[in-house]
Amino acid sequence: MYLEHVNSPEDVRALPASALPTLADEVRAAIIERTSAIGGHTGSNLATVELTIALHRVFETPHDKIVFDVSHQSYAHKMLTGRAAAFLDPARYAEASGFSNPGESEHDLFSMGHTSTSISLACGLASARDLAGETYDVVAVIGDGSLSGGLAFEGLDNAVELGSGLIIVVNDNEWSIAPNRGGIYRSLADLRATQGASEHNVFRALGLDYRYLEDGHDVAALEVALSELRGTDHPVVLHVHTEKGHGYAPAAANPEGWHHAVPFDVATGAVRPGAAAHPADENYANVTGALLADWMQTDPRVVAVNAATPYIMGFSPELRERAGRRFVDVGIAEEHAVSYVTGLARAGARPVLGIYATFLQRAYDQLWHDLCLNGVPATILVFGASAFGTTDVTHLGFFDIPMLGSMPGLTYLAPTCIEEYLDMLSWSIEHEGGPVAIRVPVAGGVTSRPEFARSDDYTHGWEVLRKGSQIALLALGDFLPLGEKIADALAVNDVSATLVNPRLATTPDKDLLGRLAADHRVIVTLEDGILDGGFGERCARALAAGDVRTLCYGLPRAFVDRYDPAELLARCGITVEGVAGDALGALGA
Amino acid sequence: MYLEHVNSPEDVRALPASALPTLADEVRAAIIERTSAIGGHTGSNLATVELTIALHRVFETPHDKIVFDVSHQSYAHKMLTGRAAAFLDPARYAEASGFSNPGESEHDLFSMGHTSTSISLACGLASARDLAGETYDVVAVIGDGSLSGGLAFEGLDNAVELGSGLIIVVNDNEWSIAPNRGGIYRSLADLRATQGASEHNVFRALGLDYRYLEDGHDVAALEVALSELRGTDHPVVLHVHTEKGHGYAPAAANPEGWHHAVPFDVATGAVRPGAAAHPADENYANVTGALLADWMQTDPRVVAVNAATPYIMGFSPELRERAGRRFVDVGIAEEHAVSYVTGLARAGARPVLGIYATFLQRAYDQLWHDLCLNGVPATILVFGASAFGTTDVTHLGFFDIPMLGSMPGLTYLAPTCIEEYLDMLSWSIEHEGGPVAIRVPVAGGVTSRPEFARSDDYTHGWEVLRKGSQIALLALGDFLPLGEKIADALAVNDVSATLVNPRLATTPDKDLLGRLAADHRVIVTLEDGILDGGFGERCARALAAGDVRTLCYGLPRAFVDRYDPAELLARCGITVEGVAGDALGALGA
Repeated sequence: MYLEHVNSPEDVRALPASALPTLADEVRAAIIERTSAIGGHTGSNLATVELTIALHRVFETPHDKIVFDVSHQSYAHKMLTGRAAAFLDPARYAEASGFSNPGESEHDLFSMGHTSTSISLACGLASARDLAGETYDVVAVIGDGSLSGGLAFEGLDNAVELGSGLIIVVNDNEWSIAPNRGGIYRSLADLRATQGASEHNVFRALGLDYRYLEDGHDVAALEVALSELRGTDHPVVLHVHTEKGHGYAPAAANPEGWHHAVPFDVATGAVRPGAAAHPADENYANVTGALLADWMQTDPRVVAVNAATPYIMGFSPELRERAGRRFVDVGIAEEHAVSYVTGLARAGARPVLGIYATFLQRAYDQLWHDLCLNGVPATILVFGASAFGTTDVTHLGFFDIPMLGSMPGLTYLAPTCIEEYLDMLSWSIEHEGGPVAIRVPVAGGVTSRPEFARSDDYTHGWEVLRKGSQIALLALGDFLPLGEKIADALAVNDVSATLVNPRLATTPDKDLLGRLAADHRVIVTLEDGILDGGFGERCARALAAGDVRTLCYGLPRAFVDRYDPAELLARCGITVEGVAGDALGALGA
Repeated sequence: MYLEHVNSPEDVRALPASALPTLADEVRAAIIERTSAIGGHTGSNLATVELTIALHRVFETPHDKIVFDVSHQSYAHKMLTGRAAAFLDPARYAEASGFSNPGESEHDLFSMGHTSTSISLACGLASARDLAGETYDVVAVIGDGSLSGGLAFEGLDNAVELGSGLIIVVNDNEWSIAPNRGGIYRSLADLRATQGASEHNVFRALGLDYRYLEDGHDVAALEVALSELRGTDHPVVLHVHTEKGHGYAPAAANPEGWHHAVPFDVATGAVRPGAAAHPADENYANVTGALLADWMQTDPRVVAVNAATPYIMGFSPELRERAGRRFVDVGIAEEHAVSYVTGLARAGARPVLGIYATFLQRAYDQLWHDLCLNGVPATILVFGASAFGTTDVTHLGFFDIPMLGSMPGLTYLAPTCIEEYLDMLSWSIEHEGGPVAIRVPVAGGVTSRPEFARSDDYTHGWEVLRKGSQIALLALGDFLPLGEKIADALAVNDVSATLVNPRLATTPDKDLLGRLAADHRVIVTLEDGILDGGFGERCARALAAGDVRTLCYGLPRAFVDRYDPAELLARCGITVEGVAGDALGALGA
């Protein structure tokens, strides 16, 4: 086996060309084996095995710099830069993250996992190189799916002005996460069909030099093409045609399903028993899709909108087919998604945008300046906003409350159970009073609470679940079950706590807080999000002029990576015993 | 005069074609007269007079929908849609804002003032129209300067997929605010040079239909071109060549200087005495440019970066020339700016990005995912972050603290005077511990405090200015002079207050807060920013478990428009007497 003996890219360069197809097979087998065991980005990584080998044959990292966009295609790169063991030895899988990670290797320049950043980052590297009078090559490797993000366009547009060398490898596997949508993919298709000769060339139109390579799985051809670009004195695009899932039949046959795989059986590609997606995610996705499909039957205004992750809101290929024009996937274009939703709503539609919290970050300005400033009726479903969401540092979802909490006029709801979620979603579709965002529960799986108190107007007012005295627990959203347990623990200590479902993540119920402050001595806030700028601080301010003591529990403003959620919570003092003990202490002090 | 009798677009359509050049002259004269008196976007509005007349001759708003991107070119539209008096009668100037405003007219669809949103908004309108089975035309009017924003690209890319009619008028006056930079401008230049025939056509490359019109000041030709597009069943771009500042020689001769004019003398174009830009803005811009130019002399790592507003950081055309490659204007591309800065810093440069708070919103995700996640050494200078910044609702700058306060690892400094600002800026350039943002003071003009306490490490620690007892005032950044006055007012009431310069907008000094809580009974926070998620709430949480009373003063999470800053503060209880009285009350209660 060659791969076992590759400790650095130098070892790749030392191999005879004849060994490279075998090395590629070994890398591919390791990708399949590892993702079959622990999940990961199977399809995109399989597509770039030969390209990565060729890159490391031609360029000498870390002297030369390679930036892999979104780093969904960095597994081969990791294996060839001293981290093969983390792919070959199951006992060592945890040593390599699924994303580019400077903490692991000097060959990884950036921690990254959001799309479309690579060209801009590479422009920065190239400018710094020029200012310092150095001469290395800078290469951005960007997938076709990432090109629809506006930031990638800003990068291409600015690359033209560099006045210096930059290599942009467009790895075109014809897929985003879901099928590509957008004009640029027509340009790419024309270019593939004409071996790069089409005049519909968005790169040349912008003033970039351009080359095309049809067989992105031919290492020798890739080496030749890349070698020709070494030391370029101007920005140049190398458009390489690859196949998503190449070399593994199940993945090649279903590129969307295999974009990110959960553990599977290698022989058949079947999902391993018990390895399905996060059950809460799946359940909330299903009920969301089903409810919206129902609405579409009776209300022609309802439109579901999504940015390249239709599955998060339950829109399977079948449901998309059924929804027709009432389901719109704008591709990786979160900014457009929010402005588009604003336009839809202004003209009388009732759009519902489903999006991961971590990707909603990209549309911060559109939320503020388009959606909220115009106060239109639209619903944003925020998925994965929890310590129990994705635990990769690049995709943390629990920074959403401060993000959305500074938007004027936005109602941000935090349902505590599936029944309340569905009721809030239906309410939001008919709500005329401006945009509504809903924090889809994650922690604790699917909680059912059929007896939740329905509201005719969720824009204000909290729900009191238990009326006690001395200590009041404000348990936001998916932390309500935690609040219940803490209340139970306090009851054991003969303290009958009040338990509140605040419903609203960013709007204190000042009347209720005033009453609680009057007849309690300690108020505890619990939130599944960062404390800085979060829910608890809003309560703390509302209570600050009085004499009640307030204890706020939540997550740190910090980049945590591949953490254990329960352990993270414990480090923050968020355990039943911990919070109950603190509250009793504050009561006694 | 025709314009006086134009009460709606119907009146424009009723005029004989022979009257239109005169109408255009009247509209143009009104633009010049009004902006000479109260300032405004002179150049861009002069460029679109004929285009706007033609649009209203061909399309019938509000049934048809026209979206003016960023609405820097909506004055003529306002005059032709019932608001002429607000441009003709100085006593009524205040009736029309400088931006598209649905509150003024049903012909304005969106409140807007950030660039590059129009195509996405128009896509939403078009989709909603189709779903409702209606048939009106939807027109986006976008300037060439706005095309460099990634969101505009996302809009173009998605327009191709609409499967329906949409008209995109590209108003090409060859200028952004400053000169255009980027590959797309090479495509536009080729198209202008070839009367639209160049094969370097980024619109056609994306799959869009395309037409070119050379004389964007010929109303008759515009009417013909637009009429041909009425009822289009697919997206089509009409590329119109206009002249920024057309019809007013001083503006046409200096497109950058006249992008946004302060009051001027019509005959000469000279700025009116006393009408210069906000003195604090200008002063802070000048010292920033001068300091960075000095640094560049001795430290080859320093690079100044900006996104289309070089003047805010003092980079006049002369200083840009002098800086050469050490000053980079990325154009309207804030996302790219932040990712680019991250790349620069990673490769050893020391970038300083100057940007308005309101536009920094667009780079929220790049701040989080690129700059902060990678912890690189870079400086962001945040301008206009104050109630005393721009008072148009579209450009409010005082939402920055919650925005930046959820970024892990970011040090956000709030200097209180010009000396402290310059010291913090110099410190940040040499700081190795991750990114630093600096909130450039606005309120109160330029405060000088040569005796400020310099720090070797601004990442932690607040400055105590006066040590008193009972009441402590935490007066952030440019609210320090306010804090001083409140302390003086309290002294009159025989309360010797402690006065603190917190220096850090998002990081409480917990040790100091603990000591203050121990020997004071009331703590007051003062910030020139919104309370929700802001500085005061962080302090309130840090103090919440104890017995000290905390009063937080700041701005509302609300869209306020063309407000009087002092009046807004007064409404928030932020007056010397108000705060002093409240604090004394809390002490006595």
